[in-house]
Amino acid sequence: MKYSEMFRIKRGDKTRLSKIDPAFTDGLADTVAVANRIKKHTERLHDLQYSLFAEGKRSLLICLQGLDAAGKDGTIVHVMGAMDPQGTRVCAFKVPSLDETNHDFLWRIEKQVPAKGEVVIFNRSHYEDVVVVRVHKIVPEAVWSRRYALINNFEKGLVANGTLVLKFYLHISSEEQLNRFQERLDDPMRHWKISESDYEERKYWKEYTKAYDDALRNTSTRHSPWYVIPSNNKWFRNLAISQIVVEQLESLKMKLPKPQVDMNEIRRKYHQALVEEEGKGN
Amino acid sequence: MKYSEMFRIKRGDKTRLSKIDPAFTDGLADTVAVANRIKKHTERLHDLQYSLFAEGKRSLLICLQGLDAAGKDGTIVHVMGAMDPQGTRVCAFKVPSLDETNHDFLWRIEKQVPAKGEVVIFNRSHYEDVVVVRVHKIVPEAVWSRRYALINNFEKGLVANGTLVLKFYLHISSEEQLNRFQERLDDPMRHWKISESDYEERKYWKEYTKAYDDALRNTSTRHSPWYVIPSNNKWFRNLAISQIVVEQLESLKMKLPKPQVDMNEIRRKYHQALVEEEGKGN
Repeated sequence: MKYSEMFRIKRGDKTRLSKIDPAFTDGLADTVAVANRIKKHTERLHDLQYSLFAEGKRSLLICLQGLDAAGKDGTIVHVMGAMDPQGTRVCAFKVPSLDETNHDFLWRIEKQVPAKGEVVIFNRSHYEDVVVVRVHKIVPEAVWSRRYALINNFEKGLVANGTLVLKFYLHISSEEQLNRFQERLDDPMRHWKISESDYEERKYWKEYTKAYDDALRNTSTRHSPWYVIPSNNKWFRNLAISQIVVEQLESLKMKLPKPQVDMNEIRRKYHQALVEEEGKGN
Repeated sequence: MKYSEMFRIKRGDKTRLSKIDPAFTDGLADTVAVANRIKKHTERLHDLQYSLFAEGKRSLLICLQGLDAAGKDGTIVHVMGAMDPQGTRVCAFKVPSLDETNHDFLWRIEKQVPAKGEVVIFNRSHYEDVVVVRVHKIVPEAVWSRRYALINNFEKGLVANGTLVLKFYLHISSEEQLNRFQERLDDPMRHWKISESDYEERKYWKEYTKAYDDALRNTSTRHSPWYVIPSNNKWFRNLAISQIVVEQLESLKMKLPKPQVDMNEIRRKYHQALVEEEGKGN
C-alpha cells in the first residue's frame, strides 16, 4: 500500500493521534533495509525539482508540523538535500512580531508562499495559529475555531494557482521525545539550543494532541491533505515522506518547456562563433 | 600561497582580466588530485555554517558574478550543498521589474541581504548595475560611474553590521564559454535554457571585460574585496572558492553560544520527566 494512502487523514475522520503508532515501520527492520529505496527517491526528487523549476508553472509547498524534537529540521535536510538550492527555500516561522500580530494570522504566511517553479518548506506554519495559541490560551476559542475555514480557503486558493500543498505531521511518542532531549544533553554542540520550555511544554502533551487532532481533522481536505508520519524512527520517516513527495510531484506530469528558440538557428550561431573563435587563434 | 591572497584584487590595481589566465590550476592535474582537499573544505563549511547560525551575530554574503556559463549555478550547488538549507538562501537577480527600476538600484538588493546568522548567495547582484547597464548603454556614464562609491558605502554598512562580504568573479575564456554552450546543445534536458542572446552577448565580450575591469578595480575594498577565480576548470574553481570561504569564515573566530539555561537544572528536569514517563508505563 502506498504511504500516501496509508497515512492520509480524511476530513472529518474520527482517527485520533493516540491510535496511530509513532513507532510503525511497515515491517522494515532498520535504516539499512531502506537505504536503496531512499536513495532512489532522493535522485528522483532531484530530477522532479529540476522539472518543476524548468516548467515554471506549478510550485510545491511543504508544511511541517510536530512537537519539539519531532524531526522537522532533519526532514528539511533530508528532502531539500536532494534539491538544487536555487529554486528551493526554507521558511521558519517563529513567534510573530508585533507588526505580524497586528495583522490577520495569514498575513505573514501569504508573503512566503512559493512562486511558480519554486519549492518552499514551512518549518512550522499557520497551523501554530490553531494549536499553540489554543494550548496556551493566547486567543479565545471563538477566534481559533474560525481559522480552520480560513485556512482551508487560503490553501484552496494556493492549489487553484498551481501550488501542490503537502502537509506532514511528524508523529513521535512522549518517550521518543525524551530520548531526543537526552541526545541533546549528551552533545555539547547542541547545548545552546536547549531551553527550559522543552520540558515545560511536555506538561501540555495532551492539550497539544487534542489541538492537533482537531486541526488535522478539520483541515485535511481533498486539495491539501494531511499525512501523519510515524516518526519515532528517522529512517522510516524519511522513507515515507520522500515516497509521498515523489509520488505527488510525479502526479503533476511535468514537462520540460520546449526550446524558446529554433535549435537549427542556434546550431548555426554556434558554428559561426566557433569559426570566429578559431580565427582569433591564428 | 593562499588563494585568498593570490586571487584578491587590490583597489586601484591596474591588473586587467585579460592578463589573468582563466585556465590556471596551480600545477594541479585534475579533479582527482583535489578531491580530498575539496571534501575537507566541504565538511568544514558545514560546521562553520552551523556555528554562524548558532552564534547568530554575524552573517555571510557571497556575490557571484561572471559571464554566461561562467559557473555561477554550479558554484552555488557546490558551496551551498555543504550547508544546512535552514539558514542559507540563494537570491537570483533577474531583469528588474518596473517597480524596481522606479527606485534606486540598491533598493531591491538591500531587501535581500542576510540576517544575523544567515548565509545568502547572490546569483548576480548590484554589480549588474555597473556592468550590463554600461555595456548596453541602459543608463548614461554619469549614472553608472557614480555607483562605485555608492556600492562601496553600501557594503561598508553591511560589514559594519557584522556581515562578511565575499565577492567572486568567475573568470572563463571565450573558448571555454563556447565549450559550455556546446554541452548545452548536446543535452536535450537543457535546451529550454538556451536563448539567442547567449550568442548575441558574445559580441560584447570586450565591453564586458572592460566594464568588469573597472568595476573590480573600483569596488575591491579592504572591507569587501573581489576575488578573480580562474574558472575554466570547474574543479579548480570549487577548490579555490571553498578554500577562501572556509578561511574567511574561520577568521571570524565564531563560538557557539553558552547554554541559555543552567545545565544542572535541565538535567534535573530531564530526570523528573524520565520518572514521570516510567510511571506512565506501569
